[in-house]
Amino acid sequence: MKLIQRLSAQSGAGRSLPSTCKYFSTTSRVTNVAEATPSTSNETASSIASLKGPTAVVLLNMGGPSTLPEVGDFLYRLFSDKDIIPLGRFQEPLARFITYRRTPKITQSYKEIGGGSPIRKWSEYQAKKACELLDKVRPASAPHKPYVAFRYANPLTPELFENLKRDGIKRAIAFSQYPQYSCATTGSSINELSRLSKEYDPNNEIEWSLIDRWPTHPGFVEAVSERIQAALQKLPAEVRSEAVLLFSAHSLPMDVVNRGDPYPAEVAATVWAVMQNLGLSNPYRLTWQSQVGPKAWLGPQTADAVKTLDLREDCKGIVLIPIAFTSDHIETSHELDIEIIGEVKNPEKIVRAESLNGSDTFTKAMADIVVNHLNDYDQKRSTSALNAVKFVRCPMCTSDRCGPSRDLFEAHNKQ
Amino acid sequence: MKLIQRLSAQSGAGRSLPSTCKYFSTTSRVTNVAEATPSTSNETASSIASLKGPTAVVLLNMGGPSTLPEVGDFLYRLFSDKDIIPLGRFQEPLARFITYRRTPKITQSYKEIGGGSPIRKWSEYQAKKACELLDKVRPASAPHKPYVAFRYANPLTPELFENLKRDGIKRAIAFSQYPQYSCATTGSSINELSRLSKEYDPNNEIEWSLIDRWPTHPGFVEAVSERIQAALQKLPAEVRSEAVLLFSAHSLPMDVVNRGDPYPAEVAATVWAVMQNLGLSNPYRLTWQSQVGPKAWLGPQTADAVKTLDLREDCKGIVLIPIAFTSDHIETSHELDIEIIGEVKNPEKIVRAESLNGSDTFTKAMADIVVNHLNDYDQKRSTSALNAVKFVRCPMCTSDRCGPSRDLFEAHNKQ
Repeated sequence: MKLIQRLSAQSGAGRSLPSTCKYFSTTSRVTNVAEATPSTSNETASSIASLKGPTAVVLLNMGGPSTLPEVGDFLYRLFSDKDIIPLGRFQEPLARFITYRRTPKITQSYKEIGGGSPIRKWSEYQAKKACELLDKVRPASAPHKPYVAFRYANPLTPELFENLKRDGIKRAIAFSQYPQYSCATTGSSINELSRLSKEYDPNNEIEWSLIDRWPTHPGFVEAVSERIQAALQKLPAEVRSEAVLLFSAHSLPMDVVNRGDPYPAEVAATVWAVMQNLGLSNPYRLTWQSQVGPKAWLGPQTADAVKTLDLREDCKGIVLIPIAFTSDHIETSHELDIEIIGEVKNPEKIVRAESLNGSDTFTKAMADIVVNHLNDYDQKRSTSALNAVKFVRCPMCTSDRCGPSRDLFEAHNKQ
Repeated sequence: MKLIQRLSAQSGAGRSLPSTCKYFSTTSRVTNVAEATPSTSNETASSIASLKGPTAVVLLNMGGPSTLPEVGDFLYRLFSDKDIIPLGRFQEPLARFITYRRTPKITQSYKEIGGGSPIRKWSEYQAKKACELLDKVRPASAPHKPYVAFRYANPLTPELFENLKRDGIKRAIAFSQYPQYSCATTGSSINELSRLSKEYDPNNEIEWSLIDRWPTHPGFVEAVSERIQAALQKLPAEVRSEAVLLFSAHSLPMDVVNRGDPYPAEVAATVWAVMQNLGLSNPYRLTWQSQVGPKAWLGPQTADAVKTLDLREDCKGIVLIPIAFTSDHIETSHELDIEIIGEVKNPEKIVRAESLNGSDTFTKAMADIVVNHLNDYDQKRSTSALNAVKFVRCPMCTSDRCGPSRDLFEAHNKQ
């Protein structure tokens, strides 16, 4: 929050950072989201008048079962998705079999974290807060209406389209809630949106644009930094400056990494941006969690790193930091908190940084990302350059889906 | 160069960037290196008077054989180094055997790139230019004297120590020329420096400090960006904005990655910083080169990516960019230019960004990195926080060398 206020004060209303900070020139412009004033709003309104609301802000994410009876359906959708878990020509029966086998254990895990995933609650909260801010700072595109579309849990994409139709939406922003791009996550969500758009909106009545990644947005980086600083305070004062900051992101199988998926590099970019924001105050490492099955996955594994550092005398403290998800889910609340931290020998040495969840700094960052996107879009820059890296299929891509899905967001350019 | 001038103009003489750019606060402050003026120099001199020169600026790097007869010794030293190629208890005889087997082929490769590695020439040039700038902008520590110490080729570390003694040096900066930290590269150089310091300077008459990484220093990022922009100009105008920027760094074996080596994440941080600096102008990927042997290495492999993109119709152009080395060496001039680019089907589609070599922007960045380091050091901040991330051994570290080697740079703190 401090950062955004400072940047706002220095960067001028509704405009981008001074060119000194050109390193974050495209994804990082921080506007006046924190301190909206009427004059700012008027300026924005007068300078950008091409669009009128309502504007749908659609948060795309994986989702999770909100209640225990939803676990089976969630897993079945997950294992049926060949973008995230390709199982070959027997995808459907295998998905059914794996779901049958794993549902009891995973239901038990959700039971242990309170009876369901909090991701819907947090996503709906974040979308609502961001839209409230957007209405203040960008009246030209107001009202901004919040929506959530999950890939594997309610609310699913068909429900999204029904809601968009009910609300008469003609303009929508697909806003990936994965800060870093992976074909397995954002890619899968885009493919689903594109596929169902043909079914639910065959005449392209909704004009879509896409925010597909924002790994080093300053507000996001600041929100994570705040969580780390709060976590450090829970360690004894004498170890704070030496505690190892252990960033943890969901791993990928090495065959996906070796195909050229951009996710590992973009997660690393986030980590370094956070370390810079903290003034390189502590030693750090990036580790990877949630590996399953016999295949090789990208490491070092979070569990191994925690287990080893826990026992090593040269490590006096550890802060475990979720870095690729914006709210709590089973991989933080169960895997990190119960399976990993719950098993260490020296629990006083380790704390977990809270997920972003209800962070005000984060919802302000979300609004800022959307403002930048809308401003760029209205200025008719190429859609694919908006907060997004220009798209190219992975060098060793084996899917025929990712490329064509982008057509949904190119309609605007072709008009 | 433009960037440094602009930053200089805005950031004030000898001071750091305004706080808007706090993301690069520790490693990235750009001072007035580009435009030194007498008043600035005086200001620097009066505000920081604790040190007097001469100050040795020692560039650490891997090195390469300058002439063909040196290839054998170079390879033997390389394969003898258990920090980069651990061969177990038979390291020495195996190193001898592998050297015997590989010398003819590698001699031939050096022959094909002009009869030797240009890395000594470029390193000596870069060190000299950076020291000339340092003398202008930081008289308090002048004269700054340039040295080079290679790990596997002349000038080796013993020669460095003899030169330091000859020149009466009492203050030296070990300046890693690997922008990103790996235990196999910078770690090995530090271990060697530390080991030989005990032999050549047993009474610690030289006060050492360390610059161990600078993956997103703005001057470095700008220097790479200039090379990319120059390379893009060599492609037909109509494909420039869509060409894939393919960053290539030397790969690591997966067992080193999985141990927690920070290199892959820091290379990725460089890549994203460059992409930001370019305004995300093009699609991009980070790929990894120079894998050898049967073990699993981090991918995607540069050679595979080039071969695939070369044939794919959705890829209209490729710029291949060395991102983890600062001057040409056999992996750029032979592997990229001859083995990879030399084999593509559509050579008109691919250009290689020049290595930094004689880039003025880069030598200014080098000087700036040293200025920041010296200012921080004189202000008695913890040595390990200077341009360097605070040190912790890799989570799954198996070496007993890295930790103790840092003692060499802690002497200053203990006084």
